Amino acid sequence: METSVIKVLGMSCEHCKQAVESALSDLSGVEHAQVNLQENQVTVTYDAKKVSLDQMNHAIEDQGYDVEA
Amino acid sequence: METSVIKVLGMSCEHCKQAVESALSDLSGVEHAQVNLQENQVTVTYDAKKVSLDQMNHAIEDQGYDVEA
Repeated sequence: METSVIKVLGMSCEHCKQAVESALSDLSGVEHAQVNLQENQVTVTYDAKKVSLDQMNHAIEDQGYDVEA
Repeated sequence: METSVIKVLGMSCEHCKQAVESALSDLSGVEHAQVNLQENQVTVTYDAKKVSLDQMNHAIEDQGYDVEA
């Protein structure tokens, strides 16, 4: 398992937090996703053999948020 | 049909807008609910014989938002 912190722009409320956490958790290989609204970031624990950061970034963007490069 | 404007605190994004509009639209007697995020308000068209402002305020509060008195 690896842990990465992804910076996400546009998350403003509990609904946003849920949307991003669910989108990541739904990906095969993601074990845990935890959004911190104050820090504008999500901490993800995942199996790098099963899921890539690129896939996770896309899942976040599909929810309507921007990932900071 | 009557139309009222309810001031709502705490709506920050499209998810909030949807949550409040859906909660109101689900009430019997509400014909239309339209949130304006910039103005922090929702405009509701309803049949006052079927639903009261008090019921609508409660529906909004049940979603986790505050109604301005």
